[in-house]
Amino acid sequence: MTSDLDPIFNPDSIALVGASNRPDKWGSFLLGHLMGGGYGHENIFPVNPHEKQIHGLKAYPSLAELPRKVSLVIITTPAKLVAGILEECAAQGLKHVVVISSNFSEVGLEGAELEREIAEVARKHGLMMVGPNTMGVINTRKDMYAVGAPLQLIRGNIAYVSQSGNVGAQMLGWTGSQGVGFGKFAGSGNEATLHCQDFIQYFGEDPDTDLILAYIEGLDDGRDFLRIVREVAKRKPIIALKSGRTEAGMKAAASHTGALAGSDKIYEAAFHQAGIMRAETTQEMLDLAKAVSRLPLPRGNRVGIITLGGGWGVIATDAAALCNLELPPPDENIIRVCDEYLPSFWSHGNPVDLVGSFNAEGHLRIIEEMMKSPSYDSVVVLGSLGTGSLMGMSMMASDPIAAGWDEQQLKNFLDSLKEKNRSMLDRMLELSHACEKPLVDVEMQFIGDDALVELEAGRGVIFTSPEKAAQVISKMLRYAEFLKHAL
Amino acid sequence: MTSDLDPIFNPDSIALVGASNRPDKWGSFLLGHLMGGGYGHENIFPVNPHEKQIHGLKAYPSLAELPRKVSLVIITTPAKLVAGILEECAAQGLKHVVVISSNFSEVGLEGAELEREIAEVARKHGLMMVGPNTMGVINTRKDMYAVGAPLQLIRGNIAYVSQSGNVGAQMLGWTGSQGVGFGKFAGSGNEATLHCQDFIQYFGEDPDTDLILAYIEGLDDGRDFLRIVREVAKRKPIIALKSGRTEAGMKAAASHTGALAGSDKIYEAAFHQAGIMRAETTQEMLDLAKAVSRLPLPRGNRVGIITLGGGWGVIATDAAALCNLELPPPDENIIRVCDEYLPSFWSHGNPVDLVGSFNAEGHLRIIEEMMKSPSYDSVVVLGSLGTGSLMGMSMMASDPIAAGWDEQQLKNFLDSLKEKNRSMLDRMLELSHACEKPLVDVEMQFIGDDALVELEAGRGVIFTSPEKAAQVISKMLRYAEFLKHAL
Repeated sequence: MTSDLDPIFNPDSIALVGASNRPDKWGSFLLGHLMGGGYGHENIFPVNPHEKQIHGLKAYPSLAELPRKVSLVIITTPAKLVAGILEECAAQGLKHVVVISSNFSEVGLEGAELEREIAEVARKHGLMMVGPNTMGVINTRKDMYAVGAPLQLIRGNIAYVSQSGNVGAQMLGWTGSQGVGFGKFAGSGNEATLHCQDFIQYFGEDPDTDLILAYIEGLDDGRDFLRIVREVAKRKPIIALKSGRTEAGMKAAASHTGALAGSDKIYEAAFHQAGIMRAETTQEMLDLAKAVSRLPLPRGNRVGIITLGGGWGVIATDAAALCNLELPPPDENIIRVCDEYLPSFWSHGNPVDLVGSFNAEGHLRIIEEMMKSPSYDSVVVLGSLGTGSLMGMSMMASDPIAAGWDEQQLKNFLDSLKEKNRSMLDRMLELSHACEKPLVDVEMQFIGDDALVELEAGRGVIFTSPEKAAQVISKMLRYAEFLKHAL
Repeated sequence: MTSDLDPIFNPDSIALVGASNRPDKWGSFLLGHLMGGGYGHENIFPVNPHEKQIHGLKAYPSLAELPRKVSLVIITTPAKLVAGILEECAAQGLKHVVVISSNFSEVGLEGAELEREIAEVARKHGLMMVGPNTMGVINTRKDMYAVGAPLQLIRGNIAYVSQSGNVGAQMLGWTGSQGVGFGKFAGSGNEATLHCQDFIQYFGEDPDTDLILAYIEGLDDGRDFLRIVREVAKRKPIIALKSGRTEAGMKAAASHTGALAGSDKIYEAAFHQAGIMRAETTQEMLDLAKAVSRLPLPRGNRVGIITLGGGWGVIATDAAALCNLELPPPDENIIRVCDEYLPSFWSHGNPVDLVGSFNAEGHLRIIEEMMKSPSYDSVVVLGSLGTGSLMGMSMMASDPIAAGWDEQQLKNFLDSLKEKNRSMLDRMLELSHACEKPLVDVEMQFIGDDALVELEAGRGVIFTSPEKAAQVISKMLRYAEFLKHAL
């Protein structure tokens, strides 16, 4: 059944029923985003009986009068017109529909009746219907942004299904500045027929998807969800954010999507069984997505920490311990290398405190030894990339021009720092893949957020707090343990 | 005694013993930061017997040979020279000293012996000595950056004492891009004589300080700390981050600053009694600082939530409930105003779901009614400022130029959105102060981080997640309750 969803994400042409010239209408936003996103304008067909032209495109009075058969119909009309339009779709042999229109079950009994009606029409004719009350769908590979929010995404291999349009769209809005690329997105809306697990199953079979994210408020059929998701999780990692965690939150969820939210403990246990990594916040979902899509999974809970300064080492140790990670002491090989590169009073423990040493070669040798050590399943490096920038900024502060440097010397110096950071991160990543364990770098300052994302270049993982590193590693470990037992 | 600390933060002139031309030396960094920060170069006196000039300034062979009596001496020499330099200070009648030099108690028994020695010299001569092993001190009002890290801060009325130089400096490094202004900073280092509570007491009496932050790994004299801090907290809010929360973290702290860390439960209870707001992470310390310095304190735990979209409303409800905040239903005045501005199927509950309405006047009227309502002690607004930007971006996506707008129309339109956001936030802040309750705005997207900070303009509070809003409100409430009982 799920390959049946393909035309929703890979349509050759799209009709938009309810397209509008009025700038405050969803039928205007959606057409604007579709056109602005780069989807071929010749393959977009606005449908509106009252307009000749919409946003510069020729408008058609009805689906029956389109010049050719389209692969996807998107509907933004008032709710009470949707059932009729679905009948038209069926009459024209159009099987794939996204219903953006709202005012269905989320607004009360009358809306729920309308929703039952359109579900019935969809089932009767075998339509694949997304929604109603959905933000829409995206496929970045097709430059298709059939969504009600203005988004421009980096292309990538992550797919995302969200039961909330605003949570979905707003999280996607963060991804650009955080350097995380996405392939497909679906707002599942009220899920009158297609449920979030149907999208997860489709993404599971989609060759362009390596990692699946889901935002969930409640499940109509938990058993079906778990059965499907558990199978997908054996092949591809799944990260879910589940809200309605508290009684008050469940009540709010019920009045939002009408979802029947079960006890959070049941979800927690079920997600665990199904191999789902559970994120606590949308930001954590993105952090976890970055790490899972770029690094190997850890094989156990023993983490080695290397820190440029003692205070952050203490904070990182707390964070690791709170996530049930263990910090075994360094083995003799590590001690030998540390003795070689660090002053005699170095910590001789885990965290390995570099006591402010700025020797990049020494850092790398110690990192390498920790990565190779059988004592550690993952390694967290705190502040090593920052050292170059720190020195550079300190030198800049003392006014090198006044001290006799010329502009070119200065530029070369700053370029060399950037290059040093890049080659250091490259080497760390090589080690991570060669040793098959995750290496997470944490930089607390002195490199700006944008510069960090530039440095990651879509392949490294640099967080700005040790807490994130510990949480992400512990959740990756849970998935690794699921795979060990499930396969 | 604490007014005795004043010359440390407000020196008329500074001698730097150990100043260096070698770019990889702390004696070079520190001089560079001091000069680059804007402190009058004519009042900086590098001391180094081997140099004639350092970073362009005349160098002096010893403190005895300075052309005039300085108010502060900073020392970056090797540890074993420090005791002798302190004796020289005393001989010259110089009472205020910051010892940057490391290799004292943090490196073992020999270092601990050296530290006892310098503490003894300081006590014998009545020196006010910061450190050793400290990052240094800052006073932004004097453009004095006597620190080993390259920092440029926004001026403000927050003071900060940190037992870790790297945690202190790195957190300060974030403050600029987050729009939070600081006045004074002290790294208390190994605290051989002056302890973090001495700085807190000084900040408590300092007319330029309205809010005090502290990063703590352990306390030598918990009783003294609590006695002092509890008195200060009655007059000024104090936010502390305490690491060494886990057994592993305590072990790491012991090897870092040699601090004897007590059980975290004891700290938790003691902080609570002393009226200290406890932050979990450095970022939360900054978030809390922003809110406490800009908004009134809540009087109770009842929060009203207004959301542009249902999903974020559910997430915000969970976040509030997890922080023990209550969400009473809207009263009849609120219901009347909502009925006036929202479609009939609006949530009729708390969160008040604006169901995507873009009517700014309606938002403001509802916000106003919730702020005035006796049912709520604080209000969280989700996404209201973003609506204008969202509409603007959606209109941009549909290519208004192609649709016949000229450049000027476009510019006016975008300016008007910015202006609308600003005046809406202004109105929200007026309400917050007039109603004497905190109003926290949360914008999840569609306004960039920099634009949010620009919009806050140092007086509003805009977070990017509902979790932050709930945590910050609940911690402010704890402080409000302390004040109620302590005064």
